[in-house]
Amino acid sequence: MGAWASLSEKTRQEMMQARAFLSAVAEPPARALARFVAERGARGAVDAIVRRRAPEPVLVEVEARRDAVSGERLLRAGEAAGLRLFIPERPDWPCEAFSELAGAREMELPDMAEPIALWVRGRAEPAECTERAVAVVGARAASGYGEHVAAEFGHGLSGVGFTVVSGAAYGIDGAAHRGALSAGGRTVAFLACGADVDYPAGHGRLLRAIADQGAVISEYPPGTPPRKHRFLVRNRLIAAMGRATVVVEAGARSGAANTANTADLLGRPVLAVPGPVTSQNSVGCHAMVRSGQAVLVTRTEEVVELLSPLGVSPAEEIAARSRPTDRLQPDARRVHDALRGVVSAGNEELARDCGLPLGRVRAVLVELELDGFAKRTESGWVAITS
Amino acid sequence: MGAWASLSEKTRQEMMQARAFLSAVAEPPARALARFVAERGARGAVDAIVRRRAPEPVLVEVEARRDAVSGERLLRAGEAAGLRLFIPERPDWPCEAFSELAGAREMELPDMAEPIALWVRGRAEPAECTERAVAVVGARAASGYGEHVAAEFGHGLSGVGFTVVSGAAYGIDGAAHRGALSAGGRTVAFLACGADVDYPAGHGRLLRAIADQGAVISEYPPGTPPRKHRFLVRNRLIAAMGRATVVVEAGARSGAANTANTADLLGRPVLAVPGPVTSQNSVGCHAMVRSGQAVLVTRTEEVVELLSPLGVSPAEEIAARSRPTDRLQPDARRVHDALRGVVSAGNEELARDCGLPLGRVRAVLVELELDGFAKRTESGWVAITS
Repeated sequence: MGAWASLSEKTRQEMMQARAFLSAVAEPPARALARFVAERGARGAVDAIVRRRAPEPVLVEVEARRDAVSGERLLRAGEAAGLRLFIPERPDWPCEAFSELAGAREMELPDMAEPIALWVRGRAEPAECTERAVAVVGARAASGYGEHVAAEFGHGLSGVGFTVVSGAAYGIDGAAHRGALSAGGRTVAFLACGADVDYPAGHGRLLRAIADQGAVISEYPPGTPPRKHRFLVRNRLIAAMGRATVVVEAGARSGAANTANTADLLGRPVLAVPGPVTSQNSVGCHAMVRSGQAVLVTRTEEVVELLSPLGVSPAEEIAARSRPTDRLQPDARRVHDALRGVVSAGNEELARDCGLPLGRVRAVLVELELDGFAKRTESGWVAITS
Repeated sequence: MGAWASLSEKTRQEMMQARAFLSAVAEPPARALARFVAERGARGAVDAIVRRRAPEPVLVEVEARRDAVSGERLLRAGEAAGLRLFIPERPDWPCEAFSELAGAREMELPDMAEPIALWVRGRAEPAECTERAVAVVGARAASGYGEHVAAEFGHGLSGVGFTVVSGAAYGIDGAAHRGALSAGGRTVAFLACGADVDYPAGHGRLLRAIADQGAVISEYPPGTPPRKHRFLVRNRLIAAMGRATVVVEAGARSGAANTANTADLLGRPVLAVPGPVTSQNSVGCHAMVRSGQAVLVTRTEEVVELLSPLGVSPAEEIAARSRPTDRLQPDARRVHDALRGVVSAGNEELARDCGLPLGRVRAVLVELELDGFAKRTESGWVAITS
């Protein structure tokens, strides 16, 4: 298959037509068809289907559309709609991303099969997007908090060179894409309809912007309308394309939870962003963390850290900004605390208050004075608070 | 030591005086003194200290206060302030709770030692509080969200019979106590000053209410003022008394994080409540979950579940409320989805749209009709959406 360049133009065109036909002749994920194509190659599979010589499960998957579909016509329709067709025979196919899906199909995991071809609107090539891609997904009916956080992650990941993959839906998806766009980074939307269909309708402009800076991709042929079950089917491509999936707000039962399950199934890390426990929008994220399915993340740096095997760890820097009094030994801190509690104090008084021997208190006071934490006055010792 | 009842009144009084003396003569946690008392008994230890025959480390701990402290006077002061003294020799001592602290002292863990005695304001006896106690702690400068959640946990835990243990501070502590009080449950405050001292001053009424429905407890003798280091020292008693510690809002570096560390050190589960990642108040909680130190919890039921070894699990009920269409088989769902996407449709149209064989579509439509998900009209099939 690496020999694409050495093929004649006619052979290439035949392969493109075959894949276009196969992308439309069965409803994805068509597992029998995907296996048959993997065994026979695209042209061989088409030939067998047209002659009705394919195995029964394949014939069942293609029965309804076999006579209505034409690869040639689809390629023309795609071209007219500004779509390019990417196929596994070409060297620019994102093989790694989808080989796990083929593996999952072989393992008979439900609803798992690699895409037969990808219809692409936009400049970027799928393969160049998968190299450093992170999926950011979540609820459509997101809160302001969720959208803010999704945009932050989209912006942050894009800013450090990751492609942000999502589903172009309202809510979290849209915010993640917008965050990536605002950082001038690359972002990819996988649709549950044709890549030429503006869905949701209110995201027409967003989809055009995504195509400009990345790609709008679908395994459905041009013009395919969205259907409810197609969203779940599409989710597997988002999960497969991301090296990790970040879930920002998800209800107890949601498409985002479905994407997370698939990522998990494919062995990709799932990361979940927490939120207020009073918000129904975060119930799914918290449940994923509690069950151990997801790692809790709060910032882009934590995602990057998790994806950087050698882990130069910018996230460790957080925490604990030190205070000057941190360097004090326990006895010195006790005396300093006692001094801070009073206007001024003498040595004996401090010794009693701290429960330290008088000699020790004297020694500590000298240290505190040298270090600038206490000073001697006419009425006794006084703390210098830093 | 179980023989308290068989002791003469004089012996009991001597023991009480000895413990009162020991509770004041060194600044807790006085590890050398605690070990010496564990070996010699309270009266033996006092005798040795007064004669200066104790080991050097003990003499260092007690040097500054030895001559100023009187057990008899302290007992009178406690009585005048309405405090009772609880000591390990009495059968109502909460031994289990503090035996881990003694163990930690033996293991030379820093700042770990069991309390030598407890001064108690209020009705409840420490032992009856420890049986089912949960610590709820968190930031003083809490957010409205944090206080709301702390009150919910306080109320919920108290409502199912747990004693809510905290530190009476502003913010999370106060909200947790108030939540417990509002459920009519028992709550215990450990102070970093004498149990008779109203600290923080603005919580005077709250402390009286806690004493009425539970107890205000301190290892510091009556009248001891609060000092900064005493809060950290006090935290170990909160951690030890709770069978688990719930952290609601904590900064990256905070007293609550310190209590959580101690609970962890003592082998008690640490539970952390998440919050918005945009809030500095939740940074500590998220860090604990990320590091694996804490389990994420969102509701009282999850805390109860974790503390109920046999786990009748009310928390599993959450999630996934089912929808009627959930029962549909994949093919039926596909057809139903397709029907929902159009005004009405004929069999062939549906077959093409779904990519299913015509015969299968016909069979599925009959099932959908029987189940009330679709109906036949003059213009074709129509979905009935549930």
